Amino acid sequence: RIKASGLKLRFCTNETQATREKFVKKLQGLGFDISVAEVTAPAPAACRLLKERGLRPHLLVHDDLVPEFAEIDKTNPNCVVVGDAAENFSYANVNEAFRVLIGLEKPVLISLGRGRYYKETDGLKLDVGAYMKALEYACDVEAEVVGKPAKAFFESALAEMGVPPQEAIMIGDDIVSDVGGAQQCGMRAVQVRTGKYRSVHALHP
Amino acid sequence: RIKASGLKLRFCTNETQATREKFVKKLQGLGFDISVAEVTAPAPAACRLLKERGLRPHLLVHDDLVPEFAEIDKTNPNCVVVGDAAENFSYANVNEAFRVLIGLEKPVLISLGRGRYYKETDGLKLDVGAYMKALEYACDVEAEVVGKPAKAFFESALAEMGVPPQEAIMIGDDIVSDVGGAQQCGMRAVQVRTGKYRSVHALHP
Repeated sequence: RIKASGLKLRFCTNETQATREKFVKKLQGLGFDISVAEVTAPAPAACRLLKERGLRPHLLVHDDLVPEFAEIDKTNPNCVVVGDAAENFSYANVNEAFRVLIGLEKPVLISLGRGRYYKETDGLKLDVGAYMKALEYACDVEAEVVGKPAKAFFESALAEMGVPPQEAIMIGDDIVSDVGGAQQCGMRAVQVRTGKYRSVHALHP
Repeated sequence: RIKASGLKLRFCTNETQATREKFVKKLQGLGFDISVAEVTAPAPAACRLLKERGLRPHLLVHDDLVPEFAEIDKTNPNCVVVGDAAENFSYANVNEAFRVLIGLEKPVLISLGRGRYYKETDGLKLDVGAYMKALEYACDVEAEVVGKPAKAFFESALAEMGVPPQEAIMIGDDIVSDVGGAQQCGMRAVQVRTGKYRSVHALHP
């Protein structure tokens, strides 16, 4: 109905366990009319940032996300990009990322989100934020976060639509990442009472 | 010479990759006159704390440290103890500790030190502090640190000798963990210019 009304539409996700292609295929399977070009996600945002600043990343991400960085020069890395790597967060892998970071004259850590944990069918799982904190502490740096609730993330979604913030509305279930992030960017925001919505979070972000 | 002089002596270590037995054997092999009873280490300090407060730990530690907790009830855990687990810091293990912690009504996290990293023959390694931070962030708790530079750690070494802080001197190579910790406890402290000593740290702890 939003599409039929002629309103512009973007899907903003913090998904970093799969490429946008995979993510879109899943949603299409659930009956959504959605294409890759309509999705704003952390990995492409990170790629833009890497290109703009001439950064060559060492990737600590999920295997399925690696294709998003196909066109990025990863030789002789001068920064670390951390995503929700899940099983790839082995001690060897985390330590390797740490060594790259601590070996840099000016360590740059880019994190694809700051989530603490999420829920899967078999229980709670540590999210990227926990490992971001581990690397921040070990190297005494502060990560640059791309993805919700980062202002730049919403700004890039707005730029892709060619719409100013005051003419856009964000709809989401997360009071901090979705609603808070959009509001800090000058947009209005609507919280849906589905997904991870909990009534205790409605008034106390 | 210290022993011959009649002065009381304790060895204070933050080693948590091995039992005191193993640690002492290594030092004896290097020619030191030292016994297990003379060593103050984080694991026994944690055991005292666990017993005092009726805590049953889930252990996220190095395999070689587990025997230090042999006499501690570990059934139905109501806290998490994290040490320098090295290769045991797999995603599965860290996630399991996280699940125990987040499942507690009042999460208690005990950390055997707060080191950022250390150096081994094959390079730098992430230390317990990084994983402590990951769990702190994921569960929104603050860890209780045993081991240097915690005041309680030095106090227990003093209690074991039966000596008041103003009559004791700490000798170590780490300006923060050794010298700083001892001074905050009312002891005097001497920094040796060996080990991890770097001149830049001598005046700026």
